[in-house]
Amino acid sequence: MGIIVQKFGGTSVANLECMQQVLAKVTSAHCDGANKVVVVLSAMSGETNRLIDLASQWSTRPDSAEMDSLVSTGEQVSVALFSMLLKDAGYNARSILGHQAEIKTDSKFGRARILDINSDRLKSYLEEYDILVVAGFQGINCDGRITTLGRGGSDTSAVALAVAVDADVCEIFTDVEGVYTTDPNLCSTARKIPKISYDEMLEMASMGAKVLQIRSVEFAKKYNMTVHVRSTFSDCNGTFVTQEDESMEAVLVSGIAYDKDQIRVTVCDVEDRPGVASAIFLPLADAGIVVDMIIQNTSRDGKTTDMTFTVPRNDLEKTQEIINRIESDIKASEVLIDERVSKVSVIGVGMRSHSGVASRMFESLCKEGINILMISTSEIKVTCLIEEKYTELAVGTLHDTFELDKEGHVCT
Amino acid sequence: MGIIVQKFGGTSVANLECMQQVLAKVTSAHCDGANKVVVVLSAMSGETNRLIDLASQWSTRPDSAEMDSLVSTGEQVSVALFSMLLKDAGYNARSILGHQAEIKTDSKFGRARILDINSDRLKSYLEEYDILVVAGFQGINCDGRITTLGRGGSDTSAVALAVAVDADVCEIFTDVEGVYTTDPNLCSTARKIPKISYDEMLEMASMGAKVLQIRSVEFAKKYNMTVHVRSTFSDCNGTFVTQEDESMEAVLVSGIAYDKDQIRVTVCDVEDRPGVASAIFLPLADAGIVVDMIIQNTSRDGKTTDMTFTVPRNDLEKTQEIINRIESDIKASEVLIDERVSKVSVIGVGMRSHSGVASRMFESLCKEGINILMISTSEIKVTCLIEEKYTELAVGTLHDTFELDKEGHVCT
Repeated sequence: MGIIVQKFGGTSVANLECMQQVLAKVTSAHCDGANKVVVVLSAMSGETNRLIDLASQWSTRPDSAEMDSLVSTGEQVSVALFSMLLKDAGYNARSILGHQAEIKTDSKFGRARILDINSDRLKSYLEEYDILVVAGFQGINCDGRITTLGRGGSDTSAVALAVAVDADVCEIFTDVEGVYTTDPNLCSTARKIPKISYDEMLEMASMGAKVLQIRSVEFAKKYNMTVHVRSTFSDCNGTFVTQEDESMEAVLVSGIAYDKDQIRVTVCDVEDRPGVASAIFLPLADAGIVVDMIIQNTSRDGKTTDMTFTVPRNDLEKTQEIINRIESDIKASEVLIDERVSKVSVIGVGMRSHSGVASRMFESLCKEGINILMISTSEIKVTCLIEEKYTELAVGTLHDTFELDKEGHVCT
Repeated sequence: MGIIVQKFGGTSVANLECMQQVLAKVTSAHCDGANKVVVVLSAMSGETNRLIDLASQWSTRPDSAEMDSLVSTGEQVSVALFSMLLKDAGYNARSILGHQAEIKTDSKFGRARILDINSDRLKSYLEEYDILVVAGFQGINCDGRITTLGRGGSDTSAVALAVAVDADVCEIFTDVEGVYTTDPNLCSTARKIPKISYDEMLEMASMGAKVLQIRSVEFAKKYNMTVHVRSTFSDCNGTFVTQEDESMEAVLVSGIAYDKDQIRVTVCDVEDRPGVASAIFLPLADAGIVVDMIIQNTSRDGKTTDMTFTVPRNDLEKTQEIINRIESDIKASEVLIDERVSKVSVIGVGMRSHSGVASRMFESLCKEGINILMISTSEIKVTCLIEEKYTELAVGTLHDTFELDKEGHVCT
C-alpha cells in the first residue's frame, strides 16, 4: 500500500466549495483504499491575517509565544472542518494537530524549525485511519508550547511529514501549474519545468520564485523526498523536484529568478581591522535577519573600508536599529540605504560542468545598458544586483539569451 | 504565598474593553506579588456559537471529536490575547492550553468529564510564572485528542484547577451578584445568599439557577474547595459555596428553584413485567439523556402500566427516536409528550432535621389553585411538576411561604 502526502494552501481551503475540490483530490489519491493519504492544510485564506489583526488591537508588540498559540488556531479550524467533510463522505479519517503528531521544533516562535516528528506515532495513526488531516505550519517546542514555522511553513510541514511516514511522494498543491523557467507575469515565453533538482529549486525559491518555502526544499533534499508541485485546478503533472540526474546537467541554465524584496545597505568608512565584519553581521544574524550578498571594498587608505550588503525589505527597520546601535563601535561615517534595487539570477546545475555563463550574463545585460551594482556567484547560480526599474528587461533578455523558451533546450 | 483561581466567562472577555476590566481584577488579586493567580477563561462571547455555525455549514451531523477540536480554538484565542495584555502590563504570565496542563478527561466529546489534572506540572508552571492563563472548557482524552466539557464547562475547569494547585479560593466571576433565594426576574423580593452549602447549590444549579455548572459544584464538594461566586462589575462579596455548617441547618429552606426546560413523556400501557423500566431507561442513559423525575403508576389490571418521566427539552428529538425504536418491544399503546410543564423546587439542608416542608409546599400551591402533576423528593429538596403557566405564581408564593425575603430567616 502506498502513502501519499498532499498539501493544500489557504486559498484551496478558503470555503466549503474549495474544500470540496480538495476532497476530490484527496479521495482520488486514496484511490479506493490503494493508498493511505496524509493531508496537510493551511488556515483558510485570510484567517491568519484576521488573527494577526486581532492581536495588533490587543498589543503593539504581541508576545511571540502567545502569537503562535493564537495563529495556530487557524489551521486547527481548517483540519477539523475538512475532517468533518471526510467523515461525512464515509472515510475513516481524523484531524491531527502539531502537538498530537509531536512535531517538535526549536523555540524560535514565529519562525520555528522542525527538529523531529514522532514517526512511530504517525505510523500507528496511519494503521488506524485511512486519511490523516494534519495541521500545517505548527509544532511544539521542548516545553510543549505551540510554535509556528513562518509564512509558507505548511510546505515544510508536508515534506517533514512525508519523510516521517516514508511517503512515496509529497504533492504540494498550489494555484500555479508548477515551477517555471521564470515568472510568466514578467516573461510571456516562460515554460513549465517538468523536473528540477533540489539545488536549483533552492536557488529559485530563495530568489523569490515563491512556489515552495525554501526550508521545505532543504528538508526534501536532506531526506531525498520527491516533491511534486502541481495545480489544485488541473489534473496535469506539475514540476517534480527531485535528485539531480545526468539529463539535468545537460541543461546549462534551468531558470531565471528575480527578487525585488531586497534592499542594499552600505556602511561607509568603517575601520579596516579584523572583527569589523562580525561586529556588523553577528547582531544581524542574532536578530534572524538573512543577509544575502556581501561586498567589502578593498581599503584604499589601509584604514577604512565600505561594507555593502543586502537584506530583505521586511527587515529594514530592524536592520537600521541594529546598525544605529553599533555605528559608533565600528566608527562608520554614514549608512546608505538603497531600496530601489532588484536581484536577478541565472540558475542551473549544468554550470558545474560548463563555464562562460557569468560572462554571457554580463554581456547580455550590458547590451541592454543595464548597470550591474553587485555580483555574487555560487556553484549553480550567478546573481546580479541591478536597479529595480530594469528587472523586467533583464529577466526577458536573460530568458532569451539562455534559450529557455525552447523545449528541452541544451545550450553549450 | 496564596494561590487564587479566578474564572471569567465569555461576556467578561468579549472584547478589549472587557478584558481590561478582567485585567484589573486579576492584578488586584495578584496584589503586588502576594498571591499567584490562575486565570481561567472562556471563549469570547459569541465565538463558540460562530464556530458551531461554521461546522453546521460543513456537516449536518459534525463528527463530535472534530467539533471539540474546532470549538476549543475559542478558548485558545482568548487566553492568548489576555496573556498578551498581561505581558504588556509587565506581568510574568503565560497561557496554558488543556493539553499543556494535561487536563485528562474521558472521551465523551462535547460533554467530557475531567478525570485528572497534572498537578505537578501546574505547580511547576506556578513556580516559574506569577499568573497562568488557562483555557477553560477543554481537556484531552487518553489518546491526546481534544475534548470539551459542555456548556458552562469552564466553571468545572476552574474548580478542578483550584483543587490541582491547592488554591485558597476559587472565584467564579459572572454577570450576577451571587446566588439568590430565587430568580430575581421572577420574584422581586429575592435576596442574595451570603453562604450556601454544596448540596444546596447542587440542587439549585440542577434546577436551573444557572449560576454555576453543576459538575463544578460536585467537584468543589468532593475536594472541599470553597467557591466564591461574584460579580465582574462590582467589588462586593457574592455567595460563598462551601461546606455545610450548623448555621445553615438552622435555615429550613434556602431557596426556590425552577426549570422550564423539561418536558414530560408518558409511555402508555406498557407491559407490567420486570425489565420494562430498564428497557426504556437504559437506551436513554446510553444516549446521555438525563432523566429526572420518574413515575410508574400502579397497574390497575395487573398487565399494563404507564411510565411517566421528564427529560430536558433539548433531548426531545433524541428521546422520541429512542422511544419509537423500542415502542414495539415494550408494547406501548401510545406516547404522550407534554412540553408545557415546569419544575418548581424548595431546597434546604435544614429539611434533614425538620419535617413538614413538603406538606407546606403542597398546601401553598393548592391555595393558589395550582395542580401538581408529579412530585419527587430528596433529603434536602421537594420538587413539584406543574403547568408551565403557573411558574411565576408558584415561585412567588413559595418564596413568601418560606419567608425567604427576610434576612437570616429561620422557619420552624
